[in-house]
Amino acid sequence: MLTDLKVEEFIKEVGSNQPAPGGGSCSALAGGALAASLAQMVAHLSGEAHADVVPNARVIADRLRHLTNRDTEAFNLVVAAYRLPRRTEQEKKERRAAIQAGTRMATEVPLQVMEVSLQALVLAKEMALHGNPNTISDAGVAGLLAAAGCRGGAAYNVLINLPGLKDREFAAEAKHRLDEILASVDRLDTEIKEHVNRALKDS
Amino acid sequence: MLTDLKVEEFIKEVGSNQPAPGGGSCSALAGGALAASLAQMVAHLSGEAHADVVPNARVIADRLRHLTNRDTEAFNLVVAAYRLPRRTEQEKKERRAAIQAGTRMATEVPLQVMEVSLQALVLAKEMALHGNPNTISDAGVAGLLAAAGCRGGAAYNVLINLPGLKDREFAAEAKHRLDEILASVDRLDTEIKEHVNRALKDS
Repeated sequence: MLTDLKVEEFIKEVGSNQPAPGGGSCSALAGGALAASLAQMVAHLSGEAHADVVPNARVIADRLRHLTNRDTEAFNLVVAAYRLPRRTEQEKKERRAAIQAGTRMATEVPLQVMEVSLQALVLAKEMALHGNPNTISDAGVAGLLAAAGCRGGAAYNVLINLPGLKDREFAAEAKHRLDEILASVDRLDTEIKEHVNRALKDS
Repeated sequence: MLTDLKVEEFIKEVGSNQPAPGGGSCSALAGGALAASLAQMVAHLSGEAHADVVPNARVIADRLRHLTNRDTEAFNLVVAAYRLPRRTEQEKKERRAAIQAGTRMATEVPLQVMEVSLQALVLAKEMALHGNPNTISDAGVAGLLAAAGCRGGAAYNVLINLPGLKDREFAAEAKHRLDEILASVDRLDTEIKEHVNRALKDS
């Protein structure tokens, strides 16, 4: 599994000439798991009032670590489907079905990354506004990374897969979820940035 | 070293109750090393015309991997300096000097993260605009992560350290470099986002 690699090896894998791991897994890791873990650290350092954030953030980070692996698995599934034989009508039909199933998973996983990263963003906001002021820059980074993850690997990967989906109802629903999440992301991202920049300028 | 940890362990370290590794190392890793590696991957998949991007991106990713470790080292240096004894005048003087040296390093490292992440952002733009259109979402993620890294761990960590610097000339120069880099980041980030969103909507 990807997240069993050393950080150094993960960086090399991303930079290789293979298309996966790519933007999806990087977004889940950076925008999600690291952002949630930063919120967790700030909660640890913010006293009893924020103790409940610690286990919440840990669960979110765990889910995003899992999704880091799943995104690359979904991509590989699509690639494998395209490589299936297509000599007979039966084979062609099975290949088409496999491509659709893979593309659907490759859309569903980044949507989940968006949903869970949005939860990380909510925690980042809570920690930026109410956590230990000495760690406000860490909460601020959590916010920036979570927003980048949602907009990036997640949203871009959903959008890039939509045209290939034959199930137009699923595609429309995915686009709807994406737009809703991005609206929340924009709002939270702006609130956190304004607060952190103001606090750092006043310090 | 931090980047010798497994990805999974790195995530746990960030989420621990210790203030380092924090936003600085996460920004160098996510906003820098992963962004540069994504640009490197896109270059690999974009044909001969972009072959020179591969070694450039690798060097940038290597430097940011190094800075991921250095940021936490700088933080630990400051913490160690604050813990020095201060019983005699001589000890107090040495402690103050050690705090200043540590704070200076804790300002210089994130400034370097910003400078090198800006280079990653430039490569991300080149790959988003001129690379393989099939990997445009990966180039887009590289852009978002590099911009988040510059604005985040990097800029926030510089700003949080400035008030503690007795050398006001160094502090003013650091603030000037920071403002210049952030202006470039804003411009590049907007260009990449607009291009990628337009391309994905038209696909």
